[in-house]
Amino acid sequence: MTVRVRLWNEFWHERHNPEVRKVYPEGIHEVLAPALRAHGLEVRTATLEDPEHGLDEAALAATDVLLWWGHKQHEAVADRVVERVAARVHAGMGLVVLHSGHFSKIFRRLMGTPCTVNWRVATDTERMWVVKPEHPICEGLGRYLEIPREEMYGEVFEVPEPEELLMISWFTGGEVFRSALTWTRGRGKIFYFRPGHETYPTYRIAAVQAVIARGCRWAAPRGEGGAPPQNQRREPIERLP
Amino acid sequence: MTVRVRLWNEFWHERHNPEVRKVYPEGIHEVLAPALRAHGLEVRTATLEDPEHGLDEAALAATDVLLWWGHKQHEAVADRVVERVAARVHAGMGLVVLHSGHFSKIFRRLMGTPCTVNWRVATDTERMWVVKPEHPICEGLGRYLEIPREEMYGEVFEVPEPEELLMISWFTGGEVFRSALTWTRGRGKIFYFRPGHETYPTYRIAAVQAVIARGCRWAAPRGEGGAPPQNQRREPIERLP
Amino acid sequence: MTVRVRLWNEFWHERHNPEVRKVYPEGIHEVLAPALRAHGLEVRTATLEDPEHGLDEAALAATDVLLWWGHKQHEAVADRVVERVAARVHAGMGLVVLHSGHFSKIFRRLMGTPCTVNWRVATDTERMWVVKPEHPICEGLGRYLEIPREEMYGEVFEVPEPEELLMISWFTGGEVFRSALTWTRGRGKIFYFRPGHETYPTYRIAAVQAVIARGCRWAAPRGEGGAPPQNQRREPIERLP
Amino acid sequence: MTVRVRLWNEFWHERHNPEVRKVYPEGIHEVLAPALRAHGLEVRTATLEDPEHGLDEAALAATDVLLWWGHKQHEAVADRVVERVAARVHAGMGLVVLHSGHFSKIFRRLMGTPCTVNWRVATDTERMWVVKPEHPICEGLGRYLEIPREEMYGEVFEVPEPEELLMISWFTGGEVFRSALTWTRGRGKIFYFRPGHETYPTYRIAAVQAVIARGCRWAAPRGEGGAPPQNQRREPIERLP
Repeated sequence: MTVRVRLWNEFWHERHNPEVRKVYPEGIHEVLAPALRAHGLEVRTATLEDPEHGLDEAALAATDVLLWWGHKQHEAVADRVVERVAARVHAGMGLVVLHSGHFSKIFRRLMGTPCTVNWRVATDTERMWVVKPEHPICEGLGRYLEIPREEMYGEVFEVPEPEELLMISWFTGGEVFRSALTWTRGRGKIFYFRPGHETYPTYRIAAVQAVIARGCRWAAPRGEGGAPPQNQRREPIERLP
Repeated sequence: MTVRVRLWNEFWHERHNPEVRKVYPEGIHEVLAPALRAHGLEVRTATLEDPEHGLDEAALAATDVLLWWGHKQHEAVADRVVERVAARVHAGMGLVVLHSGHFSKIFRRLMGTPCTVNWRVATDTERMWVVKPEHPICEGLGRYLEIPREEMYGEVFEVPEPEELLMISWFTGGEVFRSALTWTRGRGKIFYFRPGHETYPTYRIAAVQAVIARGCRWAAPRGEGGAPPQNQRREPIERLP
Repeated sequence: MTVRVRLWNEFWHERHNPEVRKVYPEGIHEVLAPALRAHGLEVRTATLEDPEHGLDEAALAATDVLLWWGHKQHEAVADRVVERVAARVHAGMGLVVLHSGHFSKIFRRLMGTPCTVNWRVATDTERMWVVKPEHPICEGLGRYLEIPREEMYGEVFEVPEPEELLMISWFTGGEVFRSALTWTRGRGKIFYFRPGHETYPTYRIAAVQAVIARGCRWAAPRGEGGAPPQNQRREPIERLP
Repeated sequence: MTVRVRLWNEFWHERHNPEVRKVYPEGIHEVLAPALRAHGLEVRTATLEDPEHGLDEAALAATDVLLWWGHKQHEAVADRVVERVAARVHAGMGLVVLHSGHFSKIFRRLMGTPCTVNWRVATDTERMWVVKPEHPICEGLGRYLEIPREEMYGEVFEVPEPEELLMISWFTGGEVFRSALTWTRGRGKIFYFRPGHETYPTYRIAAVQAVIARGCRWAAPRGEGGAPPQNQRREPIERLP
């Protein structure tokens, strides 16, 4: 089955922060897009500055899974676009949220919680332990996925109880974090995956790219989708005397 | 432990619809409030037309559990009040949502889903089967709680997977509905309880009042509460060489 | 992907009870096996009276999903076979349990609970309402699956909290039942599906056959499987000064 | 409410291993019992060598919560006692399982999974991060509970998906572990709490004692309890023409 991914990147740090530009001169989206295509996904990109942030009705109608990276410009995302995306998720579109996207408007909108974390920009090593090895997203990872240098996120991660807890991160600085989690919202499936601070080349790591690709495939809807659910009046099925 | 309940009622049908006025001439809140007081709860009421809908900062600071009944006037609730209530729930305040409150702004805000149902105003009997008899909210109910005449709500109830499913309703018209459910959002506990259409005297039934009273007690926070969670920067705990 | 199903039937009623023989003269397994093959599954059958009940190590090693129907002869299943099957589920084999299999040794072994129900042999209609329409097992069902005449099972169904609740049954006699449920045990996926009393031709209904076929496909393991998990001693990954 | 705790200790290491005798000369149970009494619990002790391991019908009938520590002698526990305890849990008795009790017969019986872990006897520091601070068992812990020296347990912990995940442990050696978890089995509540290797004085730490005391209080049944659930035949509630 072809899965049509829309890869959304805020694309701000890469243009305004020299340190980030060195790591991702082409933009995070232009690193991830070819990697995901190599995993057999159909990928289009969109960024904050595109009209409607590249997420108009037509674009979303042609999207199976929306992949989201944002950080400094969360508040610049228009509320009408957030509501449009939420309605599409409710109708069945998948959503994969990366790293600092934990505090994006769309993720908070769908979770209903603060979505806050404890954090530290540091030279921590992150070791992501697999706790559900039979899950398709964890396929082939073995016992853990290690990232040499990453930003630290620590508990409490203020999200609703996940439906599936796939990985827990260990950090050299002494913390832990639930770092690969899934939920359903309406008909749509949501996957949050922690790694990917903009000052480290995390998205150039093959195993990280593979998790994101499997996450997109997992989140893709079955069948046609349709309109978001509505309140509906119904006639009785039983006819009692 | 004293539990301070704020009982919020839209209080619109009782004043504008003669059929409802016959059932609840004093208002739904003035039927439920003394019933809950008889169960040992401290109860204050608030309605849509009060300044800030009776839900200003001071009122919420003095509230352990907010009880919510609304229907026709969901859209008349100010967004700033909805956000204020959501922040209090995140910080630990309990929330008990009744019947058509399933489509209130505050419930949809905290669930992140459409919260829609299938429905029929009918003369259905509703039989609420207990599926988790060991839960404090179900104490003393036996196998089921029956309500002679009620509005029908049918699946799919478009909410996130509940943390606890306490009761499932059977309707004479042929449908079923998950009708007593719990979630956590931040530090706050949420209980949804289905019955209570405004044209039937459901809230005058002792067993229904008792479930709502136990629900309030269950949702009450432990300890002092505090501010809603924030993103916080942290220093390393471990100091590696 | 080819899914190798082992379809286990107690095969007692069909030989000893004339009423059942009229409904399933060839045995329940010989009705379900060709139906599942028509859905693209590879199916072998096994019955209680086969050596080792048809479930020796070699048979299980060649099985992706075990499908189980039993009723009167639960206690005749040898404990060593139950443990062998449990070990295979822990290692990744799927298990689909039908109807009265709720009280089989293998299901109780894997659930850890009494697995009891309330029941009535009756002429109830069963209407199975879909509560998770996006799940692959529910594909194409619409709002509900109706079975004209069935045995009634009522709550409380004494199983652990399911990971997924897919359908809830409504019965004309006045009860409800969680009737399509999933769990994971070790690496293995488990699906319980309620319908199929031996005195009614439930397994001749195309929609019922299709649910079972999708259930087998859903429960099939990914990849190679292996040995059941063991306690294992590990060396430190970090080397602290 | 008085909670009657039966504290079961294998009591083998303390008598046969000089290293352990130095840490717990009086036996683990004689360290924990007075500590739990100081928290207001009523505590009786029982050990492996008592007749029926101190767990005959009369003893269990007078028990609200059974607390379990075992390690080397898991296989010496009689199967009939395991079944008797399981039936009591199904009927409502609470069960708190400590540390190496993860591989006890009773815990495996109730979980239905292998309950295996990865482990290392080492000088790891264990830092238990609270992920559900609003839960009564976590009251007063702050962000984490640290234990200076402990045995390491690492994921995958082969248990069913917990109903509540309360704490996650970080170990200096580089691993993580879900270390405070809850489940329900029948009417009974189960709490697993990881720390307590016999060669370290973990159970002399006040914060550890307090978690166990709160765990016992949390697991205590409401009301009278009764018999374990049975399959029961029922007459129709509805009488259709």
